[in-house]
Amino acid sequence: MTDWPRRAAAHLAAVRRLRPMVHHLTNDVVTNLTANVTLCLGAAPVMAPSVEEVEEMVGFAGCLLLNIGTLDPPLVESMIRAGRRANDRDIPVVLDPVGAGATRLRTESALRILDACRVSVLRGNAGEVLTLVGSGGKVRGVDSMEDMAGRDEAVAAWAARNSTVVAVTGPVDLVTDGRRRLYVHNGHPILGAVTGTGCSATTAVASFLAASREDPAASTALALAVFGLAAEQAAARSAGPGTFVPHLLDALYALDEAACMAGIRMEQAA
Amino acid sequence: MTDWPRRAAAHLAAVRRLRPMVHHLTNDVVTNLTANVTLCLGAAPVMAPSVEEVEEMVGFAGCLLLNIGTLDPPLVESMIRAGRRANDRDIPVVLDPVGAGATRLRTESALRILDACRVSVLRGNAGEVLTLVGSGGKVRGVDSMEDMAGRDEAVAAWAARNSTVVAVTGPVDLVTDGRRRLYVHNGHPILGAVTGTGCSATTAVASFLAASREDPAASTALALAVFGLAAEQAAARSAGPGTFVPHLLDALYALDEAACMAGIRMEQAA
Amino acid sequence: MTDWPRRAAAHLAAVRRLRPMVHHLTNDVVTNLTANVTLCLGAAPVMAPSVEEVEEMVGFAGCLLLNIGTLDPPLVESMIRAGRRANDRDIPVVLDPVGAGATRLRTESALRILDACRVSVLRGNAGEVLTLVGSGGKVRGVDSMEDMAGRDEAVAAWAARNSTVVAVTGPVDLVTDGRRRLYVHNGHPILGAVTGTGCSATTAVASFLAASREDPAASTALALAVFGLAAEQAAARSAGPGTFVPHLLDALYALDEAACMAGIRMEQAA
Repeated sequence: MTDWPRRAAAHLAAVRRLRPMVHHLTNDVVTNLTANVTLCLGAAPVMAPSVEEVEEMVGFAGCLLLNIGTLDPPLVESMIRAGRRANDRDIPVVLDPVGAGATRLRTESALRILDACRVSVLRGNAGEVLTLVGSGGKVRGVDSMEDMAGRDEAVAAWAARNSTVVAVTGPVDLVTDGRRRLYVHNGHPILGAVTGTGCSATTAVASFLAASREDPAASTALALAVFGLAAEQAAARSAGPGTFVPHLLDALYALDEAACMAGIRMEQAA
Repeated sequence: MTDWPRRAAAHLAAVRRLRPMVHHLTNDVVTNLTANVTLCLGAAPVMAPSVEEVEEMVGFAGCLLLNIGTLDPPLVESMIRAGRRANDRDIPVVLDPVGAGATRLRTESALRILDACRVSVLRGNAGEVLTLVGSGGKVRGVDSMEDMAGRDEAVAAWAARNSTVVAVTGPVDLVTDGRRRLYVHNGHPILGAVTGTGCSATTAVASFLAASREDPAASTALALAVFGLAAEQAAARSAGPGTFVPHLLDALYALDEAACMAGIRMEQAA
Repeated sequence: MTDWPRRAAAHLAAVRRLRPMVHHLTNDVVTNLTANVTLCLGAAPVMAPSVEEVEEMVGFAGCLLLNIGTLDPPLVESMIRAGRRANDRDIPVVLDPVGAGATRLRTESALRILDACRVSVLRGNAGEVLTLVGSGGKVRGVDSMEDMAGRDEAVAAWAARNSTVVAVTGPVDLVTDGRRRLYVHNGHPILGAVTGTGCSATTAVASFLAASREDPAASTALALAVFGLAAEQAAARSAGPGTFVPHLLDALYALDEAACMAGIRMEQAA
């Protein structure tokens, strides 16, 4: 049986020791928050979206994070160029398809990125992921996915076919590379009342991948568990969604081995 | 005599029950804060400024908020397209003309938006509103408006002629549709030391309009009163303008019927 | 011997009395934080990057701040136009060359701005400043600058040749106009775990210059000392980098003469 708490602590220690750079091309709403999440985890954020420099900048990165929350076509072009260069250099790419399914621009841009670059990890909520996983007739209809087990099966099948780790976050997070399914139970409902917490979870995933790319599914799940554990601690210390944010950053910064050992709640299925 | 505290509580409850989407095209300084204000009130923020998707996105909105704080011509074009589509669908449009009067670009862009779209509510400070209300020789000269009663009369006349609710925020907020004048006494001076609090008041107005468009002047005034009351509570709990912000969000999130009954301070004048 | 603490208090009082406007063309990550830093110091922030209005807007400013943290060529064009207009009006210009040395776009853009406009103060970390100071064969090689005294000499020589105050921030801040070297000992290591604190220090410099341009080197050093002192106070009151930020703003807002007298730690070297 895998000792997830110990692995979480070890992975977090590696981030802090290596201080890898995480190159973000992300949305205007969360730049400040996700830069601080990166720093509090021990990695180094760079927010550099300009097409004139993304290819040069990504060469210094341990991971590239693409988040389409406030996208326009020039930004998508930057993302694709950065993603291809990251692929050339074997730097992992994480995609957060914010709002996929809500507008054609978002759905098509997410699919274009997935098509143009090898994405190591796709992290979204259920609606976003199912939009992408279900597109192009690659999986069974949406109806069958209303059933949770069916949904997880469809996601895992897509992950296997595309050699991409998929993370579906929600009350319980699913992470799968198609062979394994990992479930993360850490987290707190207050996250739903704070903007950018999904984006921040993606930043945690990118920071963990930047420090170790051996087992991307495990890194992804461990990052989500660590982020969720910090959220639990912050919720206990705060009086609402406003005071929650500074406490979340403090909790991420202070998280240590003992806290991981006591609080990480993950399991592997099938 | 209208029971404003009870109406404030009822309106806030409606926002939380309906969770309407508020589509923001807003400035880079306040995206994060105003998204969180929206969430804490119980509505759902979407920040999506790209011209390629605004018309599709606004179709899902309960209200469209246009804020020109960091405008450029492409963003104004997005705003006008979104505004016209909102008009077609009978979705209310709220305009925050940040800095109108300071530069030609701002004044002219605000006027262009007012000309191109039916704006349900215009919310600004006295300088911004008087710049727009006084333009084109529509009202008496600025001199006569130095007198407060004259100012309110001029604003009310413009509101009536343009079928637009106008909210002038300040130590006391004026809200008028031309027929009535509502005065809101909630608020706190510390708001002047925090960036984005005017924009956040506009977000509160848009969230309230999204939940009910029956009486836009009342919705606007109630939103400003609720926002101001939360600010009063936050000021009492914080040690300065930095700690004020997280407490403001907590206060918005926690505001309940009892607090509204005890704290809302509004009145209607002739 | 100069009474730096008293001068710091007097300069801060002047900012609060005059409330000068600081026009920021800055990066997407720090707009909100630096606007609040400006307000808490007592100055008035305007974030207005559009090329259509920068020349008009800067005319109302006490200082222009250019920060290339998320630059693209149109923004650099806006910066140069604003900088030239500021020069015409004798409004001081402060440049924060974020990431100079990391990519060609950043290094070349910073050099273009320095070439096109008279910059009153250049504020960066050691890597950024040495990249710019060392470019074009103007100073001795990087090797000799690994030695701290050699570094300071090279920076001072460049400052004298270019009639620009240079501030190199780090554990101890160096400020020099070529004739004098001022060292600022205020500050706290937690600043390294929070995004935008270097940009915020630049905002403090711009706010102080906006209130008094008689002795730019002294204004720069005093601003860094005041900012560093507030950081020390905030660190003592916070539990990590998340709660540090609201406390930093509170501390800047509350800083008074007594605190300056007790806490400012600066010295002038030969």
